[in-house]
Amino acid sequence: MFQTFQSQSGPEHVAERVKALRELMAKSKLDAVLVPRADSHQGEYVPPSAERLQWLTGFTGSAGIAVVTKKAAALFTDGRYTLQANAETDTDVFEISLLPRAKLFEWLLSTLAREETVGFDSWNHTAGEIARLKAALAPKRIKLKALSKNPIDVLWGKARPTPPTNPVISQPLALAGRAATEKISEFQKRLKSDGQHAAILTLPDSICWLFNIRGSDIAHNPVALAFAIVPASGKAELFIEPARLDKEARANLAPVARLLPPVAMPERIAALKSKKKKVRLDTESAAYWFEMKLGAAAISRGQDPCILPKAIKTEAEIAGARAAHIRDGHAVVRFLAWLDKTAPDGTLDEITAVRKLEDLRRDTNCLREISFPTIAGSGPNGAIVHYRVSENTNRRIRAGELFLIDSGAQYQDGTTDITRTVAIGTPTEDMKQHFTAVLKGHIAIATARFPKGTRGIDLDPFARRALWAIGEDFDHGTGHGIGSYLSVHEGPQSISRGGLVPLEPGMLISNEPGYYKVGAYGIRIENVVLVAPPKKIGSGGREMMSFETLTLAPIDRRLIVPTMLDHGEREWLNAYHQSVNDALSTQLDDETRAWLKDATQPL
Amino acid sequence: MFQTFQSQSGPEHVAERVKALRELMAKSKLDAVLVPRADSHQGEYVPPSAERLQWLTGFTGSAGIAVVTKKAAALFTDGRYTLQANAETDTDVFEISLLPRAKLFEWLLSTLAREETVGFDSWNHTAGEIARLKAALAPKRIKLKALSKNPIDVLWGKARPTPPTNPVISQPLALAGRAATEKISEFQKRLKSDGQHAAILTLPDSICWLFNIRGSDIAHNPVALAFAIVPASGKAELFIEPARLDKEARANLAPVARLLPPVAMPERIAALKSKKKKVRLDTESAAYWFEMKLGAAAISRGQDPCILPKAIKTEAEIAGARAAHIRDGHAVVRFLAWLDKTAPDGTLDEITAVRKLEDLRRDTNCLREISFPTIAGSGPNGAIVHYRVSENTNRRIRAGELFLIDSGAQYQDGTTDITRTVAIGTPTEDMKQHFTAVLKGHIAIATARFPKGTRGIDLDPFARRALWAIGEDFDHGTGHGIGSYLSVHEGPQSISRGGLVPLEPGMLISNEPGYYKVGAYGIRIENVVLVAPPKKIGSGGREMMSFETLTLAPIDRRLIVPTMLDHGEREWLNAYHQSVNDALSTQLDDETRAWLKDATQPL
Repeated sequence: MFQTFQSQSGPEHVAERVKALRELMAKSKLDAVLVPRADSHQGEYVPPSAERLQWLTGFTGSAGIAVVTKKAAALFTDGRYTLQANAETDTDVFEISLLPRAKLFEWLLSTLAREETVGFDSWNHTAGEIARLKAALAPKRIKLKALSKNPIDVLWGKARPTPPTNPVISQPLALAGRAATEKISEFQKRLKSDGQHAAILTLPDSICWLFNIRGSDIAHNPVALAFAIVPASGKAELFIEPARLDKEARANLAPVARLLPPVAMPERIAALKSKKKKVRLDTESAAYWFEMKLGAAAISRGQDPCILPKAIKTEAEIAGARAAHIRDGHAVVRFLAWLDKTAPDGTLDEITAVRKLEDLRRDTNCLREISFPTIAGSGPNGAIVHYRVSENTNRRIRAGELFLIDSGAQYQDGTTDITRTVAIGTPTEDMKQHFTAVLKGHIAIATARFPKGTRGIDLDPFARRALWAIGEDFDHGTGHGIGSYLSVHEGPQSISRGGLVPLEPGMLISNEPGYYKVGAYGIRIENVVLVAPPKKIGSGGREMMSFETLTLAPIDRRLIVPTMLDHGEREWLNAYHQSVNDALSTQLDDETRAWLKDATQPL
Repeated sequence: MFQTFQSQSGPEHVAERVKALRELMAKSKLDAVLVPRADSHQGEYVPPSAERLQWLTGFTGSAGIAVVTKKAAALFTDGRYTLQANAETDTDVFEISLLPRAKLFEWLLSTLAREETVGFDSWNHTAGEIARLKAALAPKRIKLKALSKNPIDVLWGKARPTPPTNPVISQPLALAGRAATEKISEFQKRLKSDGQHAAILTLPDSICWLFNIRGSDIAHNPVALAFAIVPASGKAELFIEPARLDKEARANLAPVARLLPPVAMPERIAALKSKKKKVRLDTESAAYWFEMKLGAAAISRGQDPCILPKAIKTEAEIAGARAAHIRDGHAVVRFLAWLDKTAPDGTLDEITAVRKLEDLRRDTNCLREISFPTIAGSGPNGAIVHYRVSENTNRRIRAGELFLIDSGAQYQDGTTDITRTVAIGTPTEDMKQHFTAVLKGHIAIATARFPKGTRGIDLDPFARRALWAIGEDFDHGTGHGIGSYLSVHEGPQSISRGGLVPLEPGMLISNEPGYYKVGAYGIRIENVVLVAPPKKIGSGGREMMSFETLTLAPIDRRLIVPTMLDHGEREWLNAYHQSVNDALSTQLDDETRAWLKDATQPL
C-alpha cells in the first residue's frame, strides 16, 4: 500500500446521499443516524469498505463522525481537520463542529426532541461509547437503536468495495522471538488469575501479535482483520476465512487455534453466554455488538491483555528493529543527499520528494509498505502538524525555506518512523534558534536516565524545557509507542501528558519534539528510541533506565546554533553522528558516503 | 511556641493504660477501639489535649493510629517513624505496622471476628475515612460505632490538658491584602453558582484566612481552632468562644460573622438539616461528626472552597513574604557566619545550633514562633529526612562532616522555610559531587519557565534529572505550598508526583531537592519560590510563567564542583549570590558583612 496523492474528493454527491439516507430513516422510523469513521475493529485506519463517513460526507480525515437528523446534519471532527472538512464536504448540508464527543452529545440533546430515536451500527461504536451516549441522552429519554443493517451500506449498494480478504502469513519465530503457544499460555495464566473463563479479542494488532500472523487488509498496518476468543484453557478460536491463510500459517496455528469463518462467531458468543462464562471484554475497544450478544452479566471488563506484553519487545524483535533502522537509515541518507543536491535549484516539489523517498526505501528490496502517509511539508506546509500532501496542496520546495519530512517503513523485521527537517539554501537566524531549541529537547529525552516506575508523563517536560525558555512550545505529545512490524502508533507507552504507564525495558517510543510557526515553517526532529534495562551508573546507589536511539540519519548541522548547546548536548550530537556514519557509510555509493561524512562531522 | 528537646517519652505506662482501655471496652461492649493521632480539625499538628495516641502508646510522631482489640494491639505509622515508634512504645503490647490505611483495614479484617464492633470518636476521623473503613469491613459485617465519649479522655481524666483557648487577633488588612467581606462575598458567589445553600468549614487555616484572624492554639501554626458555617447569603457563623477575640478582632468580624460559642454548633447544624438545606462539606477533611449530624441527604460533597484562593497570595501577602524573607535572611546569614566560625573546633552540637538560630530569629523582634521544629542533622543524622533532634539523639558537629539545617519562622507578614547544607571542615569529593547534583536540580526548578496549565507534577522531574544521571534520587516531593502567616505546609500547590493542580501566579512553593546517604550524610537545598505571572519572553509567541526565588542566604560554595555546572547554572548561582549580598549586607555587623561578601563571591 504505497502513497497516493488523491485530490480532495469534493462535495458534489453529499446533498443527494443525505436525502436518500433521510428517506431510508423515514421508512425505518429513525429520527437520527450516526455515521462514524470506524470499522468493526476501531483502528486508526479502516478498509475502503468501511469508508462510510467519506461516502456520505466527502470528508477523508481519519477522525470524525456525522449525525443526520430529519432536518439537520453535522460533521464532528478534531482541530487538525477543520479546514479539510470544510473543503471536502457540502457545508450547505453539514455544519462542521469540533470534537470531543461531549459536544456531539450536546448537539444531539439540543437538536432532537424528547423520546426520539437514534439509529447506529453496533459494529462501529465501542461498548463504552454507547454507554456514555445513553447516559448523556437519558434526560430527554432519547432512544438508541442498534440497526440490523448499516443504512450507508444499503444505500452504497453494489458500489461498496468488498471487505478485504487478503492473504495471511506467519510472522516467523526468528523475528517474533516468542511462539504463539508461549504467548497464549501466558495469556491464559492471566485469565485464570483474573478468574475469567475466556477473553474476546477485537484489535487486529493484538490478534496478529498473539498468533504471530500478519496480513494486508488495511493501509500501512500489516494486519489481518480478524476476531478471536481465547479460553482460559484449551485452544483459541480465530475467526477469519481459513482459505486466507497459507499452508505454513495454518500449520503454525494448528496447535493453538481453531480457524473458524467469521460467520461462525455469533454462535460461539451465544455459547459463551449460555454456559454463563465470565468473559473478559475491553469495552473501550470492542464493538458494542459484543456487549449486546454477551449480555452484561457475562462481561468482565478489562483492558485487552495483549496490549502491555506486545509493547515489550522480545530480543528478536529488538534485533529486528536495529536491522530495520540500519536499512531504513541507508534509504533516508540517500534521500537526504539527493535532496541536498537537487533541491536548491528550486524545481522539486513535495510529491516528487515523497516518491523519491519511497523509491529509495523500495530499493532496499525489503519494504512491505510505508508505515503511514508521508508528511512532507515545505515552508508553511511544514507548520501543519498532520499535513498530507495532495495534488491540490503540492508545493515547490524553495531556497530559504525549511522542509520537514516525516515518514516510515514497514519491514518484516521492524517498523520505522523518522522526521528530519532540512534547510533548503540559507536558513534565517530564527529558524536556527527554533531548530536548536527543538534539538535540545530531543537530546534531553535521548540522554535522560530515569528510575523504574518513571512514566512518559514524567519525561515529556524534558522535551519542552528549552522551548519554554524562549516562550515556545508544541501542541502534541513528545512520543508514541511503535509496533514491531505492526502499527506505527501503539500503546500503552508514550511520552506525553497522557503517558501514565511506567516505561519498561524493550518498549519502542518515538522522540519527536517540534516547533511550528504558522504560515512560515515547521520543525520536528524524530528518532525511535528503545527503553534500555535498568543498571547501576558509576557509584550511584540506584538502578536507572535510559533510552537507546535506534534511528540512524544525520540531523541538519546547518540549522544548529552551536553556542546554544551545552557541553553534554554537543557531545551527544557528535557521538550520534559518529554512530550514524559508522553504521551506514560502508554500504553507500561514493558520492553519498562523502555527503554523509560531511553531514556527520563533529560540531 | 519555641522548640523543645524532649527525650522520648518511653513506654513505661503503656501496658497499664491499654489494660484500663480494655476494661472500659468490655463495659461498653466494644471489641476494638481506634485511637488516631488526630484532633477535630484533622491538621498536621494537634493541641496537647488531643495527644491521645501519645498518651496511650508513648509514640510522639505526627502520623499514626493505634488499634486495640480485646487481645491484640497495633500501632500503624509511616516509614519515616518506624524506628521512633519502636523506641517509644512498649513493643510487648503494640505490634508496629506500616501505613497506608489499607494495611490497617486488612489487620482489622483478619484480627476481628464476624459482626464484632469497632468504636471510634466521630470527631477524630474524616467522613471519607469512615466510609472507606465501613466498606472494607463489610465482608465480615464488622460494625463501626461512633462513641458518645472518647474512651481515652475518660481514662486520661483530669490529667488531660485543657483544650486551648488562646487569644485571637486580627490579621491586619495591610498584611492580608483583602478584607474578609470581600473573601466571603466571593465564597458566597461560588456557593450560589454551585447551587449550595451553605458550607461548613472545619480547617483552621481556611477559617483564619477567610476571616482574617490568627491565633496560637497549636504549635507552629498561628491559627485559632474554630468551625464556621458560611451561608450562600447573609452573615457567616463562626464557632469560637467570643471572649477569646480582642476588641479589634470583634469589631472587624462584626459586619461578616456572628460569633457563637462552640456549644451552639450542634443546634445550628440541626437547623440546616431540618430546613433541608444543601450543605457543602469537604468529606476528606471534615470530621465524620458533621456527616452524622447533617445526614447524607443534606451533604453536597466538595473541596473546602478556601483552599485554592488562600494559596494564591495577594499583592500585600507577596510584599509581606518578601519582607519576611529579607528579615529571615539576616538571621540565617548571622547563623551561618557564626557556624563557620564556631563549628570547626568541634564543640558545637545540634541542639546548640538550633537554639542559636532561634535566638537570632528572635533578635529580629518580629518572630512569632518557628514554623516547624528545626531539623538539624550532623553527619548521619542529616540522612534522616524527618529528623528531629532530642536530648537522646543530640550529636556533636564534627569536622569532615556535612551539617543539614532545615528551619523556618512565622512572622506576621510571612512564613519562611529554608534548608542549607554546610561543609564543616573539608568535604570529600563524593559530598561535593552529590551536593552539586542536588544544586543542579534546585537551579533547574529556580530557572524553569513553563506555560499556563503546568502542574507541579510536570516540573518535579527537573529537580531529579541531574541525580538520575548519576544513579541517585530522593524519596520525597520537590516542594510543598507555603501559607502566608499560616501553615508552612499548604495545598493544593506542590512540586511532586501528586502535584496535579495547575500552578498559578502568587503561589508560594518550596524548592528543596535532596540527597541522603544512609549512615553518612544528608544534603538538601531549599528556597521558597513565588510563581510569577505569565509574560512573553523575547520574541516567543507564548506567555510563560516562572519562579522568583524569595529566600536569601548563601549556598555553600565549598561544596560545589564548578565543572559540573553549565554556563546557565553558574550564571544563576552568581546572580543569586549577588542578590543575597545586595539585599542583606547593609544591615549586618562588619564581621558578618565580610563573611557574607566572601560567601557570595562569584564562582
